Amino acid sequence: MLVGYGTYMDLVPDALKQGKDHIVTGMKKELDRVNAAVDAACEGRDTVVISSGDSGIYGMSGLVLEVLEKRELLDDVTLNVIPGIPALAAGAALLGAPLMHDFAVISMSDLLTPWERIESRVSHAAAADFSLVIYNPRSKRRDWQLPKALELVREHRSPETPIGIVTSAFREKQQIQVTTLGEVKPEDIGMLSIVFIGNSQTRKVGNRILTPRGYADKYAMGK
Amino acid sequence: MLVGYGTYMDLVPDALKQGKDHIVTGMKKELDRVNAAVDAACEGRDTVVISSGDSGIYGMSGLVLEVLEKRELLDDVTLNVIPGIPALAAGAALLGAPLMHDFAVISMSDLLTPWERIESRVSHAAAADFSLVIYNPRSKRRDWQLPKALELVREHRSPETPIGIVTSAFREKQQIQVTTLGEVKPEDIGMLSIVFIGNSQTRKVGNRILTPRGYADKYAMGK
Repeated sequence: MLVGYGTYMDLVPDALKQGKDHIVTGMKKELDRVNAAVDAACEGRDTVVISSGDSGIYGMSGLVLEVLEKRELLDDVTLNVIPGIPALAAGAALLGAPLMHDFAVISMSDLLTPWERIESRVSHAAAADFSLVIYNPRSKRRDWQLPKALELVREHRSPETPIGIVTSAFREKQQIQVTTLGEVKPEDIGMLSIVFIGNSQTRKVGNRILTPRGYADKYAMGK
Repeated sequence: MLVGYGTYMDLVPDALKQGKDHIVTGMKKELDRVNAAVDAACEGRDTVVISSGDSGIYGMSGLVLEVLEKRELLDDVTLNVIPGIPALAAGAALLGAPLMHDFAVISMSDLLTPWERIESRVSHAAAADFSLVIYNPRSKRRDWQLPKALELVREHRSPETPIGIVTSAFREKQQIQVTTLGEVKPEDIGMLSIVFIGNSQTRKVGNRILTPRGYADKYAMGK
């Protein structure tokens, strides 16, 4: 039994889907979907909940675990979480090497998280010179959070700080944009994008972004 | 041409290695290895630099880009970075769902980074209630950094905060340990481990770790 949100189910190769039952539900029906999957598992069926990227990073694995706990099925249903390539790794690969040093990952979605907490995380991450990865940067209804976050980062980082925006990494409508903290236009960023903001050492290398790890100094490679 | 550190080269399936030349060098010979790979690419050979996990997270992709820049070969050598499953995703999958919300990733290695910067990142990340992922937590020669970092986290987080330690995820000598900030013993942690520290909401669920994303409140699932 395969259970998933339509958009992600479409990404599963047909060969893997053939001969299996499906439960497909729409956006924001996460809880219905997980309950249906758990029901199927309780009937003794091998059941897979599909998640895009890595299911452990803003994906479905947490909700599955939470539902098993709530329904007191932790000892009865065997749960295996299969890791995947998270969007932060896919996007970074397309940009060059923006995450070679310590980084922080923050979702701009305040649907399930108070904005004050998100704001505090952006400020602390910027102050500690982390590279930042911004998930869910912007949607039609959530349009002011990303500009506000960029404003907070500007208090700690120069306008030349490289920014990479990757949309639909390794998928059909893939887009890659390299810009700077001074020139980024939040209105060009959509709900399928993730945004990479460099640390104080990050620089453009050709049309790529590099956050050096310090080998240059250590091995006297020069700049 | 395959270029890699011996330990990681051994993980490449034989079928992929057959019929290809190899350059294998020891630990800490990263720069020699990358230069040899670039030399081979300049001779017109398809060349692969092997990195474990995801090459963009404390891996080899940054150094390759840096060497191409330094040798002024950015326009002459085509570089493709192939994303992989980073240790943070592999480890999280084995622990349950510890990274379902915002998190920060920090290496304890002060070989290439001043300790003051690492310390500042740990403190800021703890203050902003990020979950933490600690890479390179401890080696024979670097034994005081992890205890010091745990001490900094304790200023912001309760002793009950779940900690997960994963060693050699999905490999032969895989080990998984779930403990707490109050009970963790740094001397049990080695150079092949990565350490997950929960945020203020993280809890144990059975023998797993869950950082809830907030669905419980939103959908009135209860606890």
